[in-house]
Amino acid sequence: MFKNILIIGFGMIGSSIAQSAKKSNKAIKIYAFDKSPTLKQRLENAKLSKVTLLKSLSDINQIDIDLIIICTPVLQYLSIFKKINNLDNHKFIVTDVGSTKYKIEDLYTKNNFKFRFVPAHPIAGIEKSGLEYGFEGLFKNRYNIICPIKNTPKSEINKIVKFWKSLFMKIEIMTSKEHDHVLSLTSHLPHVISYSLVLTAMKKEKSLNSKLIKFSAGGFRDFTRVAGSDPEMWRDIFLTNSDQIQKLTNTFIAELKKFSKDLNSKNSKNLLKKLELTKKVRNRIVKARQAGKFIPND
Amino acid sequence: MFKNILIIGFGMIGSSIAQSAKKSNKAIKIYAFDKSPTLKQRLENAKLSKVTLLKSLSDINQIDIDLIIICTPVLQYLSIFKKINNLDNHKFIVTDVGSTKYKIEDLYTKNNFKFRFVPAHPIAGIEKSGLEYGFEGLFKNRYNIICPIKNTPKSEINKIVKFWKSLFMKIEIMTSKEHDHVLSLTSHLPHVISYSLVLTAMKKEKSLNSKLIKFSAGGFRDFTRVAGSDPEMWRDIFLTNSDQIQKLTNTFIAELKKFSKDLNSKNSKNLLKKLELTKKVRNRIVKARQAGKFIPND
Repeated sequence: MFKNILIIGFGMIGSSIAQSAKKSNKAIKIYAFDKSPTLKQRLENAKLSKVTLLKSLSDINQIDIDLIIICTPVLQYLSIFKKINNLDNHKFIVTDVGSTKYKIEDLYTKNNFKFRFVPAHPIAGIEKSGLEYGFEGLFKNRYNIICPIKNTPKSEINKIVKFWKSLFMKIEIMTSKEHDHVLSLTSHLPHVISYSLVLTAMKKEKSLNSKLIKFSAGGFRDFTRVAGSDPEMWRDIFLTNSDQIQKLTNTFIAELKKFSKDLNSKNSKNLLKKLELTKKVRNRIVKARQAGKFIPND
Repeated sequence: MFKNILIIGFGMIGSSIAQSAKKSNKAIKIYAFDKSPTLKQRLENAKLSKVTLLKSLSDINQIDIDLIIICTPVLQYLSIFKKINNLDNHKFIVTDVGSTKYKIEDLYTKNNFKFRFVPAHPIAGIEKSGLEYGFEGLFKNRYNIICPIKNTPKSEINKIVKFWKSLFMKIEIMTSKEHDHVLSLTSHLPHVISYSLVLTAMKKEKSLNSKLIKFSAGGFRDFTRVAGSDPEMWRDIFLTNSDQIQKLTNTFIAELKKFSKDLNSKNSKNLLKKLELTKKVRNRIVKARQAGKFIPND
């Protein structure tokens, strides 16, 4: 197993990886590289002072890093890839946590980078960003989608699979294309919708005085949770899967128009049927233990 | 204060009212009227056997009911109102928990009903239906919107306000029109969107095999929570506020189209700005303590 792990981009996800990896293997050493100038102090405040800060990526070779996990927004990958590629030797394997996969694979293969790379996407997260919000159990029982690049030796894929499994994750293997297709529906479109709903609400807010926030518990608040995610991370996700997202948004708009048409008493039966159908989907998610738990009152 | 409360429609909300009212005043007697043929057994199973079942609404006068709370879907109100109105005397006050208010007020005033009625809408709920899911703390610190009908004596409004306050609710007074306007944004539109998203996903599901449910934790599951609400209740909400909801849906579609257009690198700055703006709305909801609490892993 890996002994020296470098996490590039030490936010909520990076910090959760550090804590989970330490829990599963106390001997593991965690290194962090991050552009935040206050990282050292913040690590100490969060009681993560055992994480060693790297000043430069060129230190990688001297300290025998054997695993690099990239946890930055996706559009920062190119510059990171270049720096990694320029190192003297590539003893390490690189994995990541990026939410889009096809454009990243494309970036890696087109540039003929020489380091080994096994892309991954742990489907786990909360809407808060910053290392302070990381926690050890984030990945437990969650899925991780591994999207191996063509011609990667099985032994290397297996090493990465084993690592994520050691954080108690369930592994799925698929191509980067399939990943982006699935995620455009289960994650990217829901985010587009959330952001757009919050923007709609902001426009109407003046006519509602303070009532938007006060009465948000009727449904609106659920959407703001998703829309509270890290802006830069989501900008990058949107820009690196925009074609699929835009197509799907159009399909959704068509469905929305049909639903809106059904909102009159003539179509009452049709409407009830739709509401019964959707309830069943919810029940399946609960049964699959992917629902999470919502406590209405804080 | 009220001594004998009748709850018509004894589901999740009714059961939560019974438990909360009992908690705040042990001497209160709770009666239930509900068309479910298995209600007696279900009450016993849920350890609510102190709730007395009424066989007919005509028993109301004999047992000195002083408060009636209607907790059925909104389209059942007319038949209930008629039955209540036909009783020999109207010593009681009626309140309700319906999620639309204007059409109900209209129904009440146009029919010249003689009983006293102070409409209310507690903004509290979970997506599960059935008395088994009721719990005592549901209303604590949540808002309740009271929409008094013209010419209702202040003393009667105050009695109803006092009752909901005894369940630890915060009270807001507004007209039924304003209520429906606010809720169309904070609750009805979010539900329209949730249902439409789930319907969109169901159409795409075949091409995803089992992956829709598996990877729902990326955002989709948040929407299914809202879409898991009681179908009949929501059909009635939609049908009794359809004009406002349809108008608002159109505004939302326009916003969605604009957002989708921004998903290309030329508009990258504009996109980031939007994502930063929406994050602030989330923060305000958290500060107002209306966010609830979400635990990602069950």
